[in-house]
Amino acid sequence: MRGLLITLEGPEGAGKTTQALRLKAYLEARKIPVIHTREPGGTPIGDRIREILLDPQASEMSLRAEILLYAASRAQLVDQLIRPALKAGKTVICDRYVDSSIVYQAYGAEGDHEEVVEVNRMATGALVPDRTYLLDLPLEEGDRRLKERGNRKDRMELKEAAFHQRVREGFLKLAQKAPERFCVLDATEAPDQVFQRITGDLTKLQHGGSDLK
Amino acid sequence: MRGLLITLEGPEGAGKTTQALRLKAYLEARKIPVIHTREPGGTPIGDRIREILLDPQASEMSLRAEILLYAASRAQLVDQLIRPALKAGKTVICDRYVDSSIVYQAYGAEGDHEEVVEVNRMATGALVPDRTYLLDLPLEEGDRRLKERGNRKDRMELKEAAFHQRVREGFLKLAQKAPERFCVLDATEAPDQVFQRITGDLTKLQHGGSDLK
Repeated sequence: MRGLLITLEGPEGAGKTTQALRLKAYLEARKIPVIHTREPGGTPIGDRIREILLDPQASEMSLRAEILLYAASRAQLVDQLIRPALKAGKTVICDRYVDSSIVYQAYGAEGDHEEVVEVNRMATGALVPDRTYLLDLPLEEGDRRLKERGNRKDRMELKEAAFHQRVREGFLKLAQKAPERFCVLDATEAPDQVFQRITGDLTKLQHGGSDLK
Repeated sequence: MRGLLITLEGPEGAGKTTQALRLKAYLEARKIPVIHTREPGGTPIGDRIREILLDPQASEMSLRAEILLYAASRAQLVDQLIRPALKAGKTVICDRYVDSSIVYQAYGAEGDHEEVVEVNRMATGALVPDRTYLLDLPLEEGDRRLKERGNRKDRMELKEAAFHQRVREGFLKLAQKAPERFCVLDATEAPDQVFQRITGDLTKLQHGGSDLK
């Protein structure tokens, strides 16, 4: 049986990595083979692309180049890691995927929506997640969390507030358009609470099989 | 007046760079503003992408990722360098361009022809060269020249002979399909002879204006 592709989406600071790692441990404890990966990156070639994408020095990057670099990193990840894992029956948890590109590049940066969708269809061979958890967070709360972490902001995080507002709204629009795939979660809730909602949803999703019960 | 976009195509060892640099000097001597660039690369971001693309270690690169990386480097080059130069009335001489992607990735590597064309249309905003000089060379002669140079082969040059045969035929097919844009040259001729043909052709091309006479 093919494994499930589960993606986590939302802004920086929403808790995607925390939830992804908890979910991985949760599934492993239930003997479900699972891998966790992230975008951009996730492969040696993807990591080299990631360095270019997130370099605050690369401010002259054109939007077209950015769209294509994210897509290239994603193509490598899908071909080298995700598809082989799914075929081998593993569940794949991926921190960001195509929805992030649509939202950051078409909604946030106001690139051509159709072009972003088309390039990503090609990059992934039209591989769509089985379930997407959107960790929704108000801008101010995301900002507060990033400051707490004290990391230097990367090239994407340095964009202005209006950009991040369009990103948030873009995610919510995508979720509205594909309610059968998206599960929207309030990321201001405590991580334990958010995680309970994820596992509750996943159990429902799997109600046909017995793996996750 | 917008400048001309002139591209040089053909296999490694055909003399593209030699001819490009001579052509640049020739135009400069006639007070025509001109820049010379190359693909992949040509910009700081493109050079970082080029390193990934030509790294013999990156043998696990999927064809989709390769297509998208070349397109990303090209998008950055067009947006940052080529379009602004053309707008400023400069002639741009470019070592390789979209035709190379179509030929190496769709003919050579047998990727999806339509996808390669479409991704590159998006990457360049449909910017097509005004003139393309194809330096055609039999495989054995290209090999001999590369050996003479004694460089270590990069990831593209390491592909097998059948690949390079499809590349040569692919270039010739593209030239047949767009005879109004392509000028096919026999690169086994002496460099002086090839260069004379290029300037002769360019003078004809420009017969409406007086710049190149």
